[in-house]
Amino acid sequence: MERITGHTVLTGLLGSPVSHSISPLMHNESFQQLNLDYVYLAFDVGTENLKTAVEGLKVLGVRGFNCTMPDKNLICEYVDHLSPAAKLIGAANTVVNDNGILTAHNTDGVGYMQAVKDAGFDIIGKKMTLLGAGGAATAICAQAALDGVSAIDVYSIKDQFFDRAINLIDNINATTNCKASLYELPDDTSLRKSLQESAILTNGTSVGMSPNIDNSIINDSSMFHENLIVSDVIYNPAQTKLLKLAKEAGLNTFNGMYMLLYQGAEAFKLWTGQEMPIRIIKEKFFS
Amino acid sequence: MERITGHTVLTGLLGSPVSHSISPLMHNESFQQLNLDYVYLAFDVGTENLKTAVEGLKVLGVRGFNCTMPDKNLICEYVDHLSPAAKLIGAANTVVNDNGILTAHNTDGVGYMQAVKDAGFDIIGKKMTLLGAGGAATAICAQAALDGVSAIDVYSIKDQFFDRAINLIDNINATTNCKASLYELPDDTSLRKSLQESAILTNGTSVGMSPNIDNSIINDSSMFHENLIVSDVIYNPAQTKLLKLAKEAGLNTFNGMYMLLYQGAEAFKLWTGQEMPIRIIKEKFFS
Repeated sequence: MERITGHTVLTGLLGSPVSHSISPLMHNESFQQLNLDYVYLAFDVGTENLKTAVEGLKVLGVRGFNCTMPDKNLICEYVDHLSPAAKLIGAANTVVNDNGILTAHNTDGVGYMQAVKDAGFDIIGKKMTLLGAGGAATAICAQAALDGVSAIDVYSIKDQFFDRAINLIDNINATTNCKASLYELPDDTSLRKSLQESAILTNGTSVGMSPNIDNSIINDSSMFHENLIVSDVIYNPAQTKLLKLAKEAGLNTFNGMYMLLYQGAEAFKLWTGQEMPIRIIKEKFFS
Repeated sequence: MERITGHTVLTGLLGSPVSHSISPLMHNESFQQLNLDYVYLAFDVGTENLKTAVEGLKVLGVRGFNCTMPDKNLICEYVDHLSPAAKLIGAANTVVNDNGILTAHNTDGVGYMQAVKDAGFDIIGKKMTLLGAGGAATAICAQAALDGVSAIDVYSIKDQFFDRAINLIDNINATTNCKASLYELPDDTSLRKSLQESAILTNGTSVGMSPNIDNSIINDSSMFHENLIVSDVIYNPAQTKLLKLAKEAGLNTFNGMYMLLYQGAEAFKLWTGQEMPIRIIKEKFFS
């Protein structure tokens, strides 16, 4: 800890719970590897105290911070500017403080798209079937559209996110070349058709996350085709029931681990202007 | 930096300027030596933003923080409780957060009294001549009285602290066995008499601090007696003009270094419940 001095700059994570997050490990190791005089701490702050925390962090001279659940939407109301992606999504996971001016970004979608590449796949110009309309799913939806995925069929139950998803779909269709469509779950007939036309299936919901590891939105592998890539934003468990089903059907799969890594790498770059040392971080925390 | 995780607890320093403070080095090294999962950062926060910073730190779950100039007085208005010393002094340098309840302490006086002992002297039951009525001086005055110094003659110019010093003197005389008196500088006749009766002289002002190292309130060593201990709260320069004068007169002297160390050790104990590893900290940062 000798490297922490009176000059060390604060970054961190707001959300609740946060104490088991891997983000402090990933960022602090990266700061150390690059000899950057920053530190990254996790702060257990829910929506009730978010405004006070953000105002405090600003006068404390924070360089920036990540936001996770349940703060990703509300944070957009407490910043001065929204990045195009954060505006489109209506949620942010990364805030940058430039001398008291806060800008909110969303690096979750960038993280996912980088994870697709990292897994060895190219989905540009192809179709995606996306499960969910919450924070992670909308971030992926927006970024995939911006990056050139040709079509996205979004499937969601009629929850509190559904109406916001309608707006996002409209925005994507109005401002990008991607053809986005929204379907209400359950709708196995449409879902089967979407999957047959898709290069990739992405679970952007928390269905199947620990401790509810026996849940999956799709339980019938006859809905897959042999070239379908099946991915999940969940990384705990490392293999969700959905990924297991796909694996057993012989399909290529990947989980949410590298999305987590790359959303962090993108935040790191926004704060420090430097590339996260990905190889070392993968080795230490993602293998 | 691998030891910083999502569980790491924040402590720190508020004030302006703070970036060159030795406190982050001293506390972070101590946390590391004792395997305590804390980190200590310096935040450049003046009085204008102090309330926002304190409210933010509270919801961020800070364990506690130090306050230095210019925040030592104002902080007392933003906490829930004041320790007896902080109340007597009207200033605090250490705040403890117990689940959202803030208590302000003043460990500067304790730090000075420990530094006296550490230098090998016993002034209990004896008289002190104290220069100054600002934050450091009043903290020393209150703690010396509480610890059993028999009499304290305080000398101050008629500055913004003078009226508060009158109150402090009255409080000391009303609530302790110490006989405290306040004199307005310049008053060489009284000062000469006080020094002849005193076991110790303490400069509690910033007169002589770098860069104004040619200044001293006392410039005539004939005012000293041969058994007088001469001390200074200043540690930069390590030997002020006052200490040089005393040294050349063959007297025992010590500077403000160990007051700084022991005020920190006392704060450390309030936050962690553990003793700072003094020997190691002295070796690394105070030698």
